[in-house]
Amino acid sequence: MTAITAQHAATALPEGGLHTQRIGALDFETGGHLPEVELAYETWGTLNAEASNAVLVLHALTGSTHVASSTAITEEGWWEGVVGPGCAIDTDRWFVVAPNVVGGCYGTTGPSSLDPEGIPWGSRFPFTTIRDSVHAEARLADALGISRWHAVVGGSMGGARALEWAATYPERVAGMAVIACGAHSTAEQIAFAQAQIQAITLDANFRGGDYYPGPTPDGGLGIARKIAHITYRSQPDMDGRFGRGAQPEEDPFGQPLRRQGRYQVESYLDYQAAKLVKRFDANSYLVLTEALMSHDVSRGRGTEAEVLAAITATPFITAVESDRLYFPGQSQELARQLPGENPVYMIDSPVGHDGFLTDLDQVAADLKRVLGL
Amino acid sequence: MTAITAQHAATALPEGGLHTQRIGALDFETGGHLPEVELAYETWGTLNAEASNAVLVLHALTGSTHVASSTAITEEGWWEGVVGPGCAIDTDRWFVVAPNVVGGCYGTTGPSSLDPEGIPWGSRFPFTTIRDSVHAEARLADALGISRWHAVVGGSMGGARALEWAATYPERVAGMAVIACGAHSTAEQIAFAQAQIQAITLDANFRGGDYYPGPTPDGGLGIARKIAHITYRSQPDMDGRFGRGAQPEEDPFGQPLRRQGRYQVESYLDYQAAKLVKRFDANSYLVLTEALMSHDVSRGRGTEAEVLAAITATPFITAVESDRLYFPGQSQELARQLPGENPVYMIDSPVGHDGFLTDLDQVAADLKRVLGL
Repeated sequence: MTAITAQHAATALPEGGLHTQRIGALDFETGGHLPEVELAYETWGTLNAEASNAVLVLHALTGSTHVASSTAITEEGWWEGVVGPGCAIDTDRWFVVAPNVVGGCYGTTGPSSLDPEGIPWGSRFPFTTIRDSVHAEARLADALGISRWHAVVGGSMGGARALEWAATYPERVAGMAVIACGAHSTAEQIAFAQAQIQAITLDANFRGGDYYPGPTPDGGLGIARKIAHITYRSQPDMDGRFGRGAQPEEDPFGQPLRRQGRYQVESYLDYQAAKLVKRFDANSYLVLTEALMSHDVSRGRGTEAEVLAAITATPFITAVESDRLYFPGQSQELARQLPGENPVYMIDSPVGHDGFLTDLDQVAADLKRVLGL
Repeated sequence: MTAITAQHAATALPEGGLHTQRIGALDFETGGHLPEVELAYETWGTLNAEASNAVLVLHALTGSTHVASSTAITEEGWWEGVVGPGCAIDTDRWFVVAPNVVGGCYGTTGPSSLDPEGIPWGSRFPFTTIRDSVHAEARLADALGISRWHAVVGGSMGGARALEWAATYPERVAGMAVIACGAHSTAEQIAFAQAQIQAITLDANFRGGDYYPGPTPDGGLGIARKIAHITYRSQPDMDGRFGRGAQPEEDPFGQPLRRQGRYQVESYLDYQAAKLVKRFDANSYLVLTEALMSHDVSRGRGTEAEVLAAITATPFITAVESDRLYFPGQSQELARQLPGENPVYMIDSPVGHDGFLTDLDQVAADLKRVLGL
């Protein structure tokens, strides 16, 4: 990696929109190696001369760099209203950076990227951990001349990355927001993840991960998404919206043999699956799911209590009341083990885990106050 | 169907163990037809001369006729200790009948059964509802000379069948125990079921359901079982037992590319999947999952409130505190709509839905008292 001074970087800084940064070769935690990694990232706002107003926003499993609209990219982002001029993370004050995670498919090097010979990495893409993504993102920070983030903010897998940032680079993280995520992946999260991975690998089109440029394992990825989506939502939410109603003009009971018609909730999940399959690479889904399963901030560092007690970043911990994949209790356990008294800011949303995307405004004022945003 | 008098049937009654009964042709609710259906069933105890001491026990999705051990079949059953001499359902007093459901693979006609030409039904097996199974079981009762059950008892899909019995044949059901099941399948239950069905049909060995006698879709059925098993257990149960521990002598982090090692919870789910794949037919799993999704006691009969208010059987409603697939609230909703004041007897088990199998003893005394067993 080339050392870049803050001064140099600041003058070279992009004016918003989507960019890529080469960060050189990357050695992965479990032994993998890539000769060249590129990180895609978007920015909003302007880095000040001291490079002291930088905020890192980290996306969830199938998220992208596109956190919010900008003049460069006007399409709405996944946290529209949270990041922007006058928003909780006010881009009139803060320089916001949002990288695509290593292994992703939104511009950062991932399994669908080409090796030096022009062949997609596919099954040869290294096993990736949350820690690997943080190391890569630190190189991006170097390149941008940002030695210390005022805050690192993320939900779900983004929360895991934020926590890992604070544990790996304590001197580089002033504040962290860990939203809808605990200190480690749980048995249940791993269990649901395993079923998803196996659905992808069961698809005859998967071909061990080397399916490019042939047909993609859409069936398997679609099932994975359905399992995930159910766990991202709450039972009352789904039952309230769909009950056991039939999809209009379809009849789940219409055939003497296998039925053709669908229940409304099936149609809804089919739609969610189709949407993801169109925008996401199955290998990336697999690699990132493994990465999320690997989440364990204390691995190789001592006990979880020790590691969390040593965190120096100001914590902002949030959970969604109705989350049944990242239970509020896991956020409470995390908050309890961090230094000082840390309330868990609860999002009172009925939708489940996805409440961290849809209802963050409930805790936006607390986020600003606690992290000095 | 041949009419059989109670007298004739009683004298011909089997002495316990596994039997089969031909019930003739069956027309299915959604238009399917089978020229000949056979029901496998086990019995315990002795039917009295008045045929007034008969209890019907109905199994869950992947259950069988083998509720409990007997002198005829000494292997432990899925409700061992609930049914037997001196047990909650005391076979010294009660004549207990447990049929395998239509579409199953424990002796009753199902997709793996042969058609009159000796070819497995496979994809030609009719779409089956809970109501179809009840109609078939009524024919078995006719054949056994049982005009009225003292009680119909079941958990999960067995509970759906018990409730459907009481609604379909009010004059033939004196009491019903509906355990860990509501009045209809919910959006969430349907959603999880859909993911399971799609995992089975995605398996290249499935071949549209006509895989006999070739390789079976074990991968798909295994994934289905894993999804189901997670939902049958509770998050605290799984996390308490496994956390994010690695399986002994395996390392989830040991490979630079795809990992070979498993987390403990994965090994546990692999084991559960392998166990089911060995004992259960994928087509039966699919047909019965569809049947369970079809569960809706009010379909075609009026509003749920009307249908439940008209139930004449004495109800015994039970739920498992930690159940997150058949939520206690659904049992409460059912109990509220039945005539009279009906407490929901809560099983205080941490394991989730499966608590109806493992911890029924907690409500056994109530079951006996309420249903006069």
